[in-house]
Amino acid sequence: MTANATAPIPMPPAPARAFASDNAAGAHPKVVEAVLAANEGHALAYGSDEWTGRAEAGFRDLFGPRTQSYLVWNGTGANVMALGTMVRPGDAVVCSEWAHVAVDETGAPERSLGVKLLPQPTATAKLVPAQLEALTHLQGVQHHAQPGVVSITQSTELGTLYTAEEVAALCDTAHRMGMRVHLDGARIANATAALGGDVAALRSFTVEAGVDVVSFGATKPGAFGAEAVVYLDPTLAERAMYVRKSVNQLPSKMRFVAAQFEAMLADDLWIRLGDHANRMATRLYEATKDIPGVTYDAPPSVNSVFPMLPPEAIEPLRAWCFFWDWDVSRHQVRWMTAWDTTEADVDAFAAGVRALLV
Amino acid sequence: MTANATAPIPMPPAPARAFASDNAAGAHPKVVEAVLAANEGHALAYGSDEWTGRAEAGFRDLFGPRTQSYLVWNGTGANVMALGTMVRPGDAVVCSEWAHVAVDETGAPERSLGVKLLPQPTATAKLVPAQLEALTHLQGVQHHAQPGVVSITQSTELGTLYTAEEVAALCDTAHRMGMRVHLDGARIANATAALGGDVAALRSFTVEAGVDVVSFGATKPGAFGAEAVVYLDPTLAERAMYVRKSVNQLPSKMRFVAAQFEAMLADDLWIRLGDHANRMATRLYEATKDIPGVTYDAPPSVNSVFPMLPPEAIEPLRAWCFFWDWDVSRHQVRWMTAWDTTEADVDAFAAGVRALLV
Amino acid sequence: MTANATAPIPMPPAPARAFASDNAAGAHPKVVEAVLAANEGHALAYGSDEWTGRAEAGFRDLFGPRTQSYLVWNGTGANVMALGTMVRPGDAVVCSEWAHVAVDETGAPERSLGVKLLPQPTATAKLVPAQLEALTHLQGVQHHAQPGVVSITQSTELGTLYTAEEVAALCDTAHRMGMRVHLDGARIANATAALGGDVAALRSFTVEAGVDVVSFGATKPGAFGAEAVVYLDPTLAERAMYVRKSVNQLPSKMRFVAAQFEAMLADDLWIRLGDHANRMATRLYEATKDIPGVTYDAPPSVNSVFPMLPPEAIEPLRAWCFFWDWDVSRHQVRWMTAWDTTEADVDAFAAGVRALLV
Amino acid sequence: MTANATAPIPMPPAPARAFASDNAAGAHPKVVEAVLAANEGHALAYGSDEWTGRAEAGFRDLFGPRTQSYLVWNGTGANVMALGTMVRPGDAVVCSEWAHVAVDETGAPERSLGVKLLPQPTATAKLVPAQLEALTHLQGVQHHAQPGVVSITQSTELGTLYTAEEVAALCDTAHRMGMRVHLDGARIANATAALGGDVAALRSFTVEAGVDVVSFGATKPGAFGAEAVVYLDPTLAERAMYVRKSVNQLPSKMRFVAAQFEAMLADDLWIRLGDHANRMATRLYEATKDIPGVTYDAPPSVNSVFPMLPPEAIEPLRAWCFFWDWDVSRHQVRWMTAWDTTEADVDAFAAGVRALLV
Repeated sequence: MTANATAPIPMPPAPARAFASDNAAGAHPKVVEAVLAANEGHALAYGSDEWTGRAEAGFRDLFGPRTQSYLVWNGTGANVMALGTMVRPGDAVVCSEWAHVAVDETGAPERSLGVKLLPQPTATAKLVPAQLEALTHLQGVQHHAQPGVVSITQSTELGTLYTAEEVAALCDTAHRMGMRVHLDGARIANATAALGGDVAALRSFTVEAGVDVVSFGATKPGAFGAEAVVYLDPTLAERAMYVRKSVNQLPSKMRFVAAQFEAMLADDLWIRLGDHANRMATRLYEATKDIPGVTYDAPPSVNSVFPMLPPEAIEPLRAWCFFWDWDVSRHQVRWMTAWDTTEADVDAFAAGVRALLV
Repeated sequence: MTANATAPIPMPPAPARAFASDNAAGAHPKVVEAVLAANEGHALAYGSDEWTGRAEAGFRDLFGPRTQSYLVWNGTGANVMALGTMVRPGDAVVCSEWAHVAVDETGAPERSLGVKLLPQPTATAKLVPAQLEALTHLQGVQHHAQPGVVSITQSTELGTLYTAEEVAALCDTAHRMGMRVHLDGARIANATAALGGDVAALRSFTVEAGVDVVSFGATKPGAFGAEAVVYLDPTLAERAMYVRKSVNQLPSKMRFVAAQFEAMLADDLWIRLGDHANRMATRLYEATKDIPGVTYDAPPSVNSVFPMLPPEAIEPLRAWCFFWDWDVSRHQVRWMTAWDTTEADVDAFAAGVRALLV
Repeated sequence: MTANATAPIPMPPAPARAFASDNAAGAHPKVVEAVLAANEGHALAYGSDEWTGRAEAGFRDLFGPRTQSYLVWNGTGANVMALGTMVRPGDAVVCSEWAHVAVDETGAPERSLGVKLLPQPTATAKLVPAQLEALTHLQGVQHHAQPGVVSITQSTELGTLYTAEEVAALCDTAHRMGMRVHLDGARIANATAALGGDVAALRSFTVEAGVDVVSFGATKPGAFGAEAVVYLDPTLAERAMYVRKSVNQLPSKMRFVAAQFEAMLADDLWIRLGDHANRMATRLYEATKDIPGVTYDAPPSVNSVFPMLPPEAIEPLRAWCFFWDWDVSRHQVRWMTAWDTTEADVDAFAAGVRALLV
Repeated sequence: MTANATAPIPMPPAPARAFASDNAAGAHPKVVEAVLAANEGHALAYGSDEWTGRAEAGFRDLFGPRTQSYLVWNGTGANVMALGTMVRPGDAVVCSEWAHVAVDETGAPERSLGVKLLPQPTATAKLVPAQLEALTHLQGVQHHAQPGVVSITQSTELGTLYTAEEVAALCDTAHRMGMRVHLDGARIANATAALGGDVAALRSFTVEAGVDVVSFGATKPGAFGAEAVVYLDPTLAERAMYVRKSVNQLPSKMRFVAAQFEAMLADDLWIRLGDHANRMATRLYEATKDIPGVTYDAPPSVNSVFPMLPPEAIEPLRAWCFFWDWDVSRHQVRWMTAWDTTEADVDAFAAGVRALLV
């Protein structure tokens, strides 16, 4: 950046796609194709259709034959529905202080379920077993909502990952304490890609680790809008269909949600799209980490990077190609990649950063 | 039907589309086209996109410049969100005993809002002002939830219609009693078509009649899944965006819901599709009313007919072409048409009924 | 009543106690004595005191050794707490259209529990098994809140009684349908007195009939304010202590609630007080049934009578000695006796009615 | 404490009253007398009685003529009722991480109101205006529950006090941000005594500081069980009577709650009792602070002290005279005085501590 701040920096062409969010991307061609194919003739509403049956079979293939799955509209709805079937009267939900359920859902769990959340401090957005154990003193005491469910996010709201071993340790502690485990998988595609990139990886940190219920997200990795509540412990699904409708999450023309899942689950498309987004984030990190004025705490684990920038550069850069702030006190921003981010997008963006800062 | 019940009746070819529900139909080509067009590049999530802006403008064109609209996923969600912004602490919602909010939403209003419903008996699914007035004795008494909102459905769950004058009379009484008026318009397209077929007709029974908030349905008349909460009284919208998310109804990739509305609102497509479905129901009524064994209470007002059939004919007919029971004690069933029901569908179905019964 | 309405009727002295409600009576001397005795020195709060232990033992004596009881403040609180431990996610509560939980609790069950009520029509405020069976079509259908709990009131809000056989038949049907049974016993003292007047009578229509949870009222029959949630099925009490506090019903200085129960349960005082109130109602019925202008549908079962009066007599009579209206369309009023109503009160009141009407 | 831990320390006689909690004390003789006096004859239920009228007048005398007050059973109920009339749809309640509403009410606000709490870290259990200002970034953002109410506790759960100026600063900031202010005054008697000991002191940190609604506690300073929700801003009381019943807090025989308030408010008895408890805590502090092994962070502000003790002394001391742990990691316990703690109780207790430790 030149000393003369009044002279505008000549910027290269902006990338075709910005780095605002994976929610800013549209739907993958395979998803589009599946929805169009489903739009033939009539099909019974509310899940009594063949597409829903095939999506449910797809989840059994992923997680095992006992799996029960329920399709819903969105991630907040999936989380609320899942928790609504997991809490007992008087229970609270333990989560990270960064958890989407605690921070970004406008109080939907409290509103829809009357449930208390117990957010725990963490610099990484990851819980550890000792944090659960520290709640033992609440158990059995009538003055306190009872820690009944642990909700973890994978990959987390800070772009970090639990290893399969870490999830298993949390599940062991939780189950020993009489608690159940929910995994918010809005970005489970990115997590699966980062932890091995196949179904075995998925199973390692979910069903094999002891997770009871998963919110499985397809929207961010490439659907129009399609999420599922997946019960790895089918005994918790006993009231699921009633809870789904009571929290406003029963799609009438469900075949169109199901078709999106059919496309995403086929040939592990969801994993491949998550992997692509992850690789684009790594490429962006590599292309910018050495630019003077750009500093990073860590390389990306999944599909977002969190650089600190010179404060005076942030607005000009954003005006050129949009992104969101992260921690304004540190001049830290978030650049997020999506399933459709191209290498050319990354390279064009990095070129712009370089043009502005060098 | 022949005397020998064991000999199967030779049936004509079944229609291409059954008469199960308007929810069994897919999306109209214009809706498909709009969604595909919206699936280009990136757009900011949660409504900060141009499609949402255009859908909101469309609702202002329909209902007037003060109108505020919020896009949501489904009808139950629209109703719950609307009521959640209308009730005050201690309020109850007065509705018909047939109301979708009372009967078909698995307790979602109670669950999500903690609100009591006060369903009123009615043979027509329509409320009358005297029923509101009869609740005056509850007002100001601390032992009773206070009648705070009236929710009416147009067209009703029984396929009946309020005239504009009837809605206005209800609104007058409600407002005089300090209550607010919600209109559940999951089939507002059919109602508008039946009551005049243009925007003036829509306005006559909504904004001009004094309705405060409308659940505006696009799913049944031809969308994939798109509803809106439309505030005709914008002062009630003050907390709408928070309530929307807290009841799990904020779409992340909102442009795809908005695009459906853009297509439906353009050139009054929604009214034309509602009108078509209505006309197919009338055609079905005319084609079957004289068949021996088929009796009707009344001709259809909108897109459903409710014939009584000989009990032994119901299952064979359903096996041939699916439909739902209505009042099993009267051997009454429901045949419902959709935006894509063709004259050939109606004629083929009527031919089957005739073949079975004559 | 003379033809000249403007000349005031000379009335005899009014009774010392009116017939407004059993809630208008104070506390019995034994209750007072017990509370004073408990007010010595310190005792641990929230139930860790010897009075609470003795009250709990008293309930085990009444209902059997498996009984678990939880002391609370008031009847609405007892009902809400009981239902809060009985409903599963997606459940609804079936009750009479006259039920206190449905009509007189300002929506507390919906507000505190998010639960839907399904009030059933009945002229007697009593449910019958066929009404439960008629709800079978709701079971297993995802669009409907599931009938999960039946709540009956004994004696009812209309002053009627279930026989033990009637309760047993309801419990059988409910349990066969997978439902649980709650008994709102705000006036269980009057019911027990009327159905035999001893603990065997109590058991016949509760634990032996199959009731799962009882709201046991001591306030109306002679306490300051003391109710209990009594679990005849102790498995339903697993979360009771958490639910109690979460619905604002955990008394800090619980010994003072417990002491009231200790006094009421000792020597079946509660039954004797209920019996007295019942007998005073019968005396009032006998003393007024032949007065010209007074008509009754039926003699009293418990502690209230519901006479129809000449309309012009109601306000003068009320001004002389207060009571509440019942069905204004029939000029029907309610006269209710209490544990402290005396024969002299009854006779003085009857004399006033006679003076006004004859 | 002697080196030979197996030889029991000869202890002096234990005090007549332990130091477990002010909730362990009974009712003051004046309260008893008022309740007994109210137990004469009949009085209409639910607040239509003269005692309630006098209690309401008493609150107008305390806080000013616009004051509206509602009597309830207990502190959790008062808090939940107050917040239930203060929050708007989508609002959250900001409080300290030590707040009773957040920590000790088993999730009652979430359960009864569906509202989210936003607990803020603080070592003193006191909030500061900067903590409110730091929430400005949540305002107007649809993903976040909106900071709508601030709830502070006076005196706090840690035995600290806000000055009138500190409360006023919080109210100014809150009101400027569009928030309302609730004061949890379960120990408002102790706070008033400590901050001046008269009505002027009370007013300085409530109505004059800008507080909108107060939970006014009479139970701890000497009642059987009596709390009130006091609206200093009467516009917030519009729905209060409905909310009170809907959160299970409407006493039927309300005169007995009202009579307790009448006694407590007369001649500022509540302040004098709070003052006495405070002075006993100071006496206890003075009598123990120099005992070897006893350390304090600070002298008491109100009626509790929080000493650190030698770990091996805690259980023997507790076995001799009961008290509760506070922070086990620091071997810190809580000794709390009550309205009926005597100087002899304090001196006997201090003698026991000395005998054990010296």
